[in-house]
Amino acid sequence: MAKRDQENYRKLFEKSYEAKILEGISNILGWDQETMMPEGASAIRGEQLKTMAGLIHKSKTSPDFKEALSNLIDIKNGKIIAKGLSKEQESALKCWRKDYLRDVALPEEFVKNFAKITSEAQVVWRNAKKDNNFKLFAPYLEKIIDLVKQKSRHLSKKGSHPYDALLDEYEPGMTTEDVDSLFKKIKDPIIALLNKIKSKKQVKDDFLHGKFPDSKQVSFSQTLLDDMGYDKAYGRLDFSSHPFSSSSHPTDSRITTRIHPTSLMSNISVILHEGGHALYEMGLDPKEYGSPLGQAVSLGIHESQSRFWETRIGKNKAFWKHYFPLLKKAFPKGLEKIDLDLFYKAINKVEPSFIRVEADEVTYPLHVILRFELEKDLIEGKLKVKDLPKAWNKKMKEYFGITPKNDQEGCLQDVHWSMGAFGYFPTYALGNMYAAQLFETLEKEQPNLEKKLEKGQIAFLKEWLKAKVYRYGRQFESLELLKESTGKPFTEKAYVDYLQKKYKEIYGL
Amino acid sequence: MAKRDQENYRKLFEKSYEAKILEGISNILGWDQETMMPEGASAIRGEQLKTMAGLIHKSKTSPDFKEALSNLIDIKNGKIIAKGLSKEQESALKCWRKDYLRDVALPEEFVKNFAKITSEAQVVWRNAKKDNNFKLFAPYLEKIIDLVKQKSRHLSKKGSHPYDALLDEYEPGMTTEDVDSLFKKIKDPIIALLNKIKSKKQVKDDFLHGKFPDSKQVSFSQTLLDDMGYDKAYGRLDFSSHPFSSSSHPTDSRITTRIHPTSLMSNISVILHEGGHALYEMGLDPKEYGSPLGQAVSLGIHESQSRFWETRIGKNKAFWKHYFPLLKKAFPKGLEKIDLDLFYKAINKVEPSFIRVEADEVTYPLHVILRFELEKDLIEGKLKVKDLPKAWNKKMKEYFGITPKNDQEGCLQDVHWSMGAFGYFPTYALGNMYAAQLFETLEKEQPNLEKKLEKGQIAFLKEWLKAKVYRYGRQFESLELLKESTGKPFTEKAYVDYLQKKYKEIYGL
Repeated sequence: MAKRDQENYRKLFEKSYEAKILEGISNILGWDQETMMPEGASAIRGEQLKTMAGLIHKSKTSPDFKEALSNLIDIKNGKIIAKGLSKEQESALKCWRKDYLRDVALPEEFVKNFAKITSEAQVVWRNAKKDNNFKLFAPYLEKIIDLVKQKSRHLSKKGSHPYDALLDEYEPGMTTEDVDSLFKKIKDPIIALLNKIKSKKQVKDDFLHGKFPDSKQVSFSQTLLDDMGYDKAYGRLDFSSHPFSSSSHPTDSRITTRIHPTSLMSNISVILHEGGHALYEMGLDPKEYGSPLGQAVSLGIHESQSRFWETRIGKNKAFWKHYFPLLKKAFPKGLEKIDLDLFYKAINKVEPSFIRVEADEVTYPLHVILRFELEKDLIEGKLKVKDLPKAWNKKMKEYFGITPKNDQEGCLQDVHWSMGAFGYFPTYALGNMYAAQLFETLEKEQPNLEKKLEKGQIAFLKEWLKAKVYRYGRQFESLELLKESTGKPFTEKAYVDYLQKKYKEIYGL
Repeated sequence: MAKRDQENYRKLFEKSYEAKILEGISNILGWDQETMMPEGASAIRGEQLKTMAGLIHKSKTSPDFKEALSNLIDIKNGKIIAKGLSKEQESALKCWRKDYLRDVALPEEFVKNFAKITSEAQVVWRNAKKDNNFKLFAPYLEKIIDLVKQKSRHLSKKGSHPYDALLDEYEPGMTTEDVDSLFKKIKDPIIALLNKIKSKKQVKDDFLHGKFPDSKQVSFSQTLLDDMGYDKAYGRLDFSSHPFSSSSHPTDSRITTRIHPTSLMSNISVILHEGGHALYEMGLDPKEYGSPLGQAVSLGIHESQSRFWETRIGKNKAFWKHYFPLLKKAFPKGLEKIDLDLFYKAINKVEPSFIRVEADEVTYPLHVILRFELEKDLIEGKLKVKDLPKAWNKKMKEYFGITPKNDQEGCLQDVHWSMGAFGYFPTYALGNMYAAQLFETLEKEQPNLEKKLEKGQIAFLKEWLKAKVYRYGRQFESLELLKESTGKPFTEKAYVDYLQKKYKEIYGL
């Protein structure tokens, strides 16, 4: 019995592997599009990606797949039929069932139409942003919100909040209520912290802006990636206008950066951030490739990995005790008179600003909360598209104390809504919060952490994160994983404590 | 009736387009593998390519495709049923039928096994070549020849030569007898020419070898590509250990080169050669993408395009009248005392050598004829694998007057046999011969050709080749196309005349 079930499990795994191979191919096409593709090929690339999307959907919803799945689990009620599976295999089965139900719930016509409209909308959004013309984008946003609501209806459980099904795509297991409650807990303390910081003397960071030769910046990137344990045999570093990481297999996990010739920290942040994403994908079990046990948990957990490296390591004084002398050596001009303390304060400067992706650690979550609140209102129908710019600016004033001078630096700044990716934004803040509880555990488990960082020893972090996160694949959902890895239920406490303690010290609050 | 047939034609075209999109994706994966892919990803890339090959085969042999085809043409006897198709559409139908019959004739199990064995064999061949150990490769070559013979049996018409079906994959419409007869006609005159040249004083070419900075070589490449009319909006230039061109659509046709820091002409030849291939793919009608009317005719015609640019333009004195001063400017050291006449003789130096890809224009076809004769003997069973090295060396002595000191520079030099690509080699020589008849026509139609080349005007050649070759797609098979484009049946005459006249002058014969 158990033997036949193992055989059935193997069959299901093989079917799933096929779809995963197709997804990997699609990722290579996507990577090429952003880094290498000649500009004139964008139309045919669209056709290629559409074809792959169709094949992937077909493979994931095929009668063969359904049959293989039904042999092991009751698709309707979720009861596992198979005997003698390991608990990891049982977790995988539940993920496979959940993914399958989501995939079949969306009619193929709907999926195609969604892809078509959002593809057009991204072009319109780009132009609207360039011309600072919200009215150009508004009718598309209305169409997209209508589609997103339809999508939610296709996917929603009875009686659930319409935003739940959207969020679940990016952060499985997390509800709107969960996010609401977490964000409420951090919002007031962070606004209070920000207001205290604003009342203090601002730190000096002019030396972070100047002339920093591209080639030296690239070479510093290589050093960091090497030290992190990013193995070039399984990845590569390129350049693109928007940095990203893209993996098609643990043996092929690529990243990109962009070099600002006048900004010292931009590329360094990107390298640590994208490197963190890439190490996660590289660290997934290749034997489980194609099974949920070889997949990342969620976008929130993914972001916890990137932000772990970018902020908890890359904005850490102990880390810079080792790297700042190297940085000074690479860029002597402008840094010669700067000491570690000044540098540390400068890279942690807090200042309300308009653009999320350039925000400091304290204001960053407020950018996310603002978007979450607005997109929830849009989905609930409380907010009309035409009133979005005003609502955006009102919240900016309320949380940050500043008002965008136009929609380009306001509600038109992010690509996500034009892609129909409602429910995505919260994961950016969740990632920071998850990273905080992970880091707290790291500090407990490694009493010598600071000393190691001061010596430039960072490669062990990859092994630690592998043991805590990578190796599980999707065996646990986000909050279960954090409980398993940190030994206690997830809360916002480690995150808020960290921000308050760190910035109290920097700003002498 | 005609209207319904047009509708059916459109349906067939759509089915075929699907397969073409998949082939384009596969080409991108292949390009990435040779240029960008991290080395550790080779195993998963193999899986991705295998998956794509399966999908392509499935699409091309699907019941849907068969039905769409049957509505227009009797698949068994090739009689066109549809009324009111254009003559171009009728040609396309015949190609579709031919391709279909070839695709369904090979059982899927056979295709997979062939892919598996040749994939392994390529690794073994690489090692055998590196270690100069033919015995290592021999058992694989035996297996491959056995598979190739099976393939021939699957594909062969009754009573045909077993090599015919192999050749037909690369040069549709051409038979073993055709090639045999053409090669016999050129072999003796070329050997005679070579022997005369050998009896004369050799030309000086030491100044082509020295130190030529990479960056300047690359920048000279860019100039040439721009002047040829290779539009970077639809392609790109990269580096790989073996140069190649790879197209996934007329809007995405990429090439690679390699830079030898001590050889001035290597990269220039590659650029003109691969550029010629790429211009052909870029010049195919994008509206016909997916139909035979949007495909290249054959490998021989493809090679006629690359060799047209590499040899007929790139080894032409009028061309260098314009470009040699630019070359001297880019690489003053070593060239300052060289005049155009010396340079022209040097780049056309004839010398028997062991490696095909480095051969001059006169010895090149002999390398191909040698391989053709040997592979025909292997397929006919007249030659045993174990006797191959001896047979190779014997022919080298006979045609070139030299003997390889080992198999690395002998029968292990080319990748083709390890890939199972029997029937491929003849197309290299056919390409040169086709190019000669095309060039003869060009000279007739453009009395000012020399003057134009002397002024560096080469962009018009792309338009001329478009009118003569690109625009037809596969409307005609190779020899029909040459007749259509040059106004007379194809013969070897233009080719032999060209070689004799040119080298008589250079060597004062």
